[in-house]
Amino acid sequence: MRPSQRKHDQLRAIRITRHYTKHAEGSVLIECGDTKVICTASVEERVPPHKKGSGEGWVTAEYGMLPRSTGERMSREAAKGKQSGRTQEIQRLIGRSLRAVVDLGKLGERTVTLDCDVIQADGGTRTASITGAFVALSDAVAALMQQGLVKENPLKHAVAAISVGIYQGIPVLDLDYLEDSDCDTDMNVVMLGNGHFVEVQGTAEGHAFSREEMDTLLELAKHGITQLVAMQQKALQG
Amino acid sequence: MRPSQRKHDQLRAIRITRHYTKHAEGSVLIECGDTKVICTASVEERVPPHKKGSGEGWVTAEYGMLPRSTGERMSREAAKGKQSGRTQEIQRLIGRSLRAVVDLGKLGERTVTLDCDVIQADGGTRTASITGAFVALSDAVAALMQQGLVKENPLKHAVAAISVGIYQGIPVLDLDYLEDSDCDTDMNVVMLGNGHFVEVQGTAEGHAFSREEMDTLLELAKHGITQLVAMQQKALQG
Amino acid sequence: MRPSQRKHDQLRAIRITRHYTKHAEGSVLIECGDTKVICTASVEERVPPHKKGSGEGWVTAEYGMLPRSTGERMSREAAKGKQSGRTQEIQRLIGRSLRAVVDLGKLGERTVTLDCDVIQADGGTRTASITGAFVALSDAVAALMQQGLVKENPLKHAVAAISVGIYQGIPVLDLDYLEDSDCDTDMNVVMLGNGHFVEVQGTAEGHAFSREEMDTLLELAKHGITQLVAMQQKALQG
Amino acid sequence: MRPSQRKHDQLRAIRITRHYTKHAEGSVLIECGDTKVICTASVEERVPPHKKGSGEGWVTAEYGMLPRSTGERMSREAAKGKQSGRTQEIQRLIGRSLRAVVDLGKLGERTVTLDCDVIQADGGTRTASITGAFVALSDAVAALMQQGLVKENPLKHAVAAISVGIYQGIPVLDLDYLEDSDCDTDMNVVMLGNGHFVEVQGTAEGHAFSREEMDTLLELAKHGITQLVAMQQKALQG
Amino acid sequence: MRPSQRKHDQLRAIRITRHYTKHAEGSVLIECGDTKVICTASVEERVPPHKKGSGEGWVTAEYGMLPRSTGERMSREAAKGKQSGRTQEIQRLIGRSLRAVVDLGKLGERTVTLDCDVIQADGGTRTASITGAFVALSDAVAALMQQGLVKENPLKHAVAAISVGIYQGIPVLDLDYLEDSDCDTDMNVVMLGNGHFVEVQGTAEGHAFSREEMDTLLELAKHGITQLVAMQQKALQG
Amino acid sequence: MRPSQRKHDQLRAIRITRHYTKHAEGSVLIECGDTKVICTASVEERVPPHKKGSGEGWVTAEYGMLPRSTGERMSREAAKGKQSGRTQEIQRLIGRSLRAVVDLGKLGERTVTLDCDVIQADGGTRTASITGAFVALSDAVAALMQQGLVKENPLKHAVAAISVGIYQGIPVLDLDYLEDSDCDTDMNVVMLGNGHFVEVQGTAEGHAFSREEMDTLLELAKHGITQLVAMQQKALQG
Repeated sequence: MRPSQRKHDQLRAIRITRHYTKHAEGSVLIECGDTKVICTASVEERVPPHKKGSGEGWVTAEYGMLPRSTGERMSREAAKGKQSGRTQEIQRLIGRSLRAVVDLGKLGERTVTLDCDVIQADGGTRTASITGAFVALSDAVAALMQQGLVKENPLKHAVAAISVGIYQGIPVLDLDYLEDSDCDTDMNVVMLGNGHFVEVQGTAEGHAFSREEMDTLLELAKHGITQLVAMQQKALQG
Repeated sequence: MRPSQRKHDQLRAIRITRHYTKHAEGSVLIECGDTKVICTASVEERVPPHKKGSGEGWVTAEYGMLPRSTGERMSREAAKGKQSGRTQEIQRLIGRSLRAVVDLGKLGERTVTLDCDVIQADGGTRTASITGAFVALSDAVAALMQQGLVKENPLKHAVAAISVGIYQGIPVLDLDYLEDSDCDTDMNVVMLGNGHFVEVQGTAEGHAFSREEMDTLLELAKHGITQLVAMQQKALQG
Repeated sequence: MRPSQRKHDQLRAIRITRHYTKHAEGSVLIECGDTKVICTASVEERVPPHKKGSGEGWVTAEYGMLPRSTGERMSREAAKGKQSGRTQEIQRLIGRSLRAVVDLGKLGERTVTLDCDVIQADGGTRTASITGAFVALSDAVAALMQQGLVKENPLKHAVAAISVGIYQGIPVLDLDYLEDSDCDTDMNVVMLGNGHFVEVQGTAEGHAFSREEMDTLLELAKHGITQLVAMQQKALQG
Repeated sequence: MRPSQRKHDQLRAIRITRHYTKHAEGSVLIECGDTKVICTASVEERVPPHKKGSGEGWVTAEYGMLPRSTGERMSREAAKGKQSGRTQEIQRLIGRSLRAVVDLGKLGERTVTLDCDVIQADGGTRTASITGAFVALSDAVAALMQQGLVKENPLKHAVAAISVGIYQGIPVLDLDYLEDSDCDTDMNVVMLGNGHFVEVQGTAEGHAFSREEMDTLLELAKHGITQLVAMQQKALQG
Repeated sequence: MRPSQRKHDQLRAIRITRHYTKHAEGSVLIECGDTKVICTASVEERVPPHKKGSGEGWVTAEYGMLPRSTGERMSREAAKGKQSGRTQEIQRLIGRSLRAVVDLGKLGERTVTLDCDVIQADGGTRTASITGAFVALSDAVAALMQQGLVKENPLKHAVAAISVGIYQGIPVLDLDYLEDSDCDTDMNVVMLGNGHFVEVQGTAEGHAFSREEMDTLLELAKHGITQLVAMQQKALQG
Repeated sequence: MRPSQRKHDQLRAIRITRHYTKHAEGSVLIECGDTKVICTASVEERVPPHKKGSGEGWVTAEYGMLPRSTGERMSREAAKGKQSGRTQEIQRLIGRSLRAVVDLGKLGERTVTLDCDVIQADGGTRTASITGAFVALSDAVAALMQQGLVKENPLKHAVAAISVGIYQGIPVLDLDYLEDSDCDTDMNVVMLGNGHFVEVQGTAEGHAFSREEMDTLLELAKHGITQLVAMQQKALQG
């Protein structure tokens, strides 16, 4: 039995709110159960050095947690003067995942920065960030096309992410914090709308996982991501 | 005429939402027009070195802005590796303002940290932070008293803050971003419920201000803060 | 009775020595009682990015204390690898105060940096820095005009600063360290030669201050600054 | 055809040299083709704060590249003053991988730090680091047991790692730099001697990968790691 | 002919002012021609970790330059967030030189920190710092003995320093900035009152120096340091 | 009797291996007894700001130690976020020593960076670095000449370095770690092939050294460096 009473293949309640803040070109609040992340997409008419003069744009991400988004207050990274290894790992993952669906040539020489800031954490903040950031990016791209700055849609696919894991011997979908702290294997999966993988990051905690367990987890992830992609589309049409 | 059509002595719409996030001992979303700040109060059972063994507690504050809380994206302080002078100045102001109403002996040897994170900025983020942080602090203190950890109420007064300034030659209350960017004098006032001053920080931008102008501004501030303190009380009883 | 035996409205002995060091365009040692600050003005033929191509110059300030300028040795900020919040707050205040009297267009596209380094501290280092920096700036501007690099005097006013506070219930002028450590309210006032305010920063320590107390303090400050401006003029003519 | 003329399921030449430097409790030079990494294991009789008093030890890793281990000189992280996100990601991976095979209770309250320093890079430095670090760790553990400081062998399994990827449409084992720079999918796999997974990190570069491709890659990885584990055992007996 | 008209073996005018600032246990302004350095000795009743419980004290030094002590303004190390390699090299040299004359056991478990801050630079700031710091240290030690905290004089010798170099082919004593910028060899010599060497740091700039040149330089240095030690003694008796 | 049984004027076994790693323009492993340093020379077609447009090139050095190159593990400078004063002092010494033998005009507007990374330390790492770096630099320069990028040989002399010291009252050549930790005077000497000095850095540890001792040490150093230069030449012809 899961602490949340969910079935093994059941997502938490997902809510996607667009236009959450007023300044950003795309601004989304994504809520996955008690996990809440503000994802904004900011467009800037410049590119990093390695893209200068290339005709191509760039998509990047930054991630942060409010100090008291968690059960115990974490120290503020800005005050400590550096981002933790975990933060950097997560923001690199978000950036790669979003770049996987963008035709940088069609985007043109501009940068879209996806800021994912966790307001409240209850497990799965990195996967919620990716799922929400795709919606914010879609809004930013739509704005660029409406302004005529971008001619062809640079978004090639939808992309969403979910965690899966083995909790008390049972493969489950969408781990919350209680499950995450006590599970044997934790896998984050990033997938396109067409079911192909963009990222798979599985980590054994406690005991290593077999090939069969991995197969089951990948199926569960696909089951969840298919639903998430549908929710993204619905939100974007809303 | 003010850009927002407000009267010269009119506050923006204020909304104070308690219990905004679930982990913190006190958690408030304060909205002053389009300025939105999450203020959380976190209690930790330890004190900084200069208070160790003193029998007294400590109250401190940290301040941050989400990178895209503003019209143009600001770089993330955690990524730059340091907090700006402005950030430090603001968080020191918030900390002093809240300490002014706390009897640290009654609080006991523990620390309350007030994190004020700006979700959306439209002027007046530091004063909104102080007004909201007082409500979060009140909730945290109430929880400590309910748990029996604190015997007597350490809060001596209510405290709230507002900005005033001279916009196009006219003294006005509660400047929004448009007014703030274009005003001659900007003054932040922190005041107790009894009308006494905790902090007055006035800065001439453009032209210096006379003693008469200063008097008018202080009256306007008192007029605004009286209303804010009433709203805090109403929220705390809600 | 004040520890220094001064009357409530009496400044400490002030001494302003120009040409204190040989390299800087303006170099002043200001002594206010036992507080001693070296203020230098350095001219550089470049401006920060936000002024490039604007035809306007820039005036900025940096502040530091020698590690043993104080009763107990403070750690060296260069060794710690960052400037404290207090240091940044003070240097921002000095910079704003001096910019308030400079016509940046007449200065032309160059930067004047005012370095205020405290050799010995006995309270009031930030206000002494402002008062001394104005003299150093005047010397630097005079040199620029003599060289023909600046045509019209960009200095619009004199500017000076003083602290006032409530010590043992009595409003007093120009607090020294003993008074400052033990006062209820501390206010730093920056004023033009014509009596208009550039900055007012009042902080209640211990108990909040009333409107009447504030009025008295502002009068005391004006009384002191009028004398300081006269001393600056005398030094500049000396 | 692979640039190195290797077959699609062929490892590069592997050489493991123990006792490579004289000070460390375990010191290994691992060469995988032209990739060369020095892996040392250092034992210290202390643990990080979260393990103090727990009776358990800790295993951690640090990773670095000599500035000219690569085709173009990279700037030295010590001189830049921070480790890149990539470095942190890799050293976290190495640490988790090694901890997966250690019974921290049997290790006792001490820390083993695995330093993996790349002398020459030609792709696959993180997987070579894991494979080599296991041998260094084995030597350090053997020394602890010989000294009687550790009673029971805390190593539960062998662990090794390899990269696999899709190069020009073909799944291949053990990518070198030329292949890595030009492949569509890159997956790092960390596996126990018994064939169970410790870490799987797959990243689509260019185009997303299907479930079938993933299955093939995992088989290839298993094929390679089986050989690597045999080489580790042989080296340890040598 | 030297730019300053001095003879090849002539020191600049030296002035040593004790009790220059009021807070430090030892405070000296040393002037060597136009080079002016404030040297303070601060006593703290604690030692660094490697001396804890040893019964021995510690002597250390820090060095800094005011930003406009030089012809062109240097950026402030506190603002840049790190001390340059040159600064660290100099403060390590000052610390070693002073420790060479202190019996750390007789000093007892306390630390004396020598802060050498350059107010005005004209060459030879590191050697002036050492010569001045010895006087400040002597005053601090005398105070400790007078208070009965130290029983026996821990100072074993006097120590002073000077630079020598080859300027336009001629070995000269005590280089000023003009000579230093244009000399072929620069040597800093730290010597005890008895003529033995504590530090010799010779650097060829331009062309390497022969054994004969080195001999001449060492003689010149001894000639200068003998005079400096006499001036220190005279100042300490003054 | 020396711990290593060497005679007082005997070098340790020296081995110089060229082409040690494959990417760098010059790559040398130098072994002096148990001290092992990888010295690489990297050529970049750019110069630092102070050389831009000068027609001259630049030669610089960086130094590092692997964390477990020493008896006890040192913390990694990249992880600590800064290079120690010792590291900076050493890399500045290496850079100056190599620049002393390069005609920067003949090198042309390019930079050669010498990275000296200590794999195993047993005393004398800085002098081994200089001796090895000269060989790496020679290889890099030869490559530039072969490619026709440099017309005339910019290397004016050979340069090598050695330490000497007074160990148990006896002047000895080439101190190893055991001697270095227990000697009274330690001197590092950098010398050209023609016997002229580039750098002399002597430090008294314990007791100051006399002029006679210094003379003896310089003779010993010359004796050692003459042999080192011969070994460099032999390696370069090998």
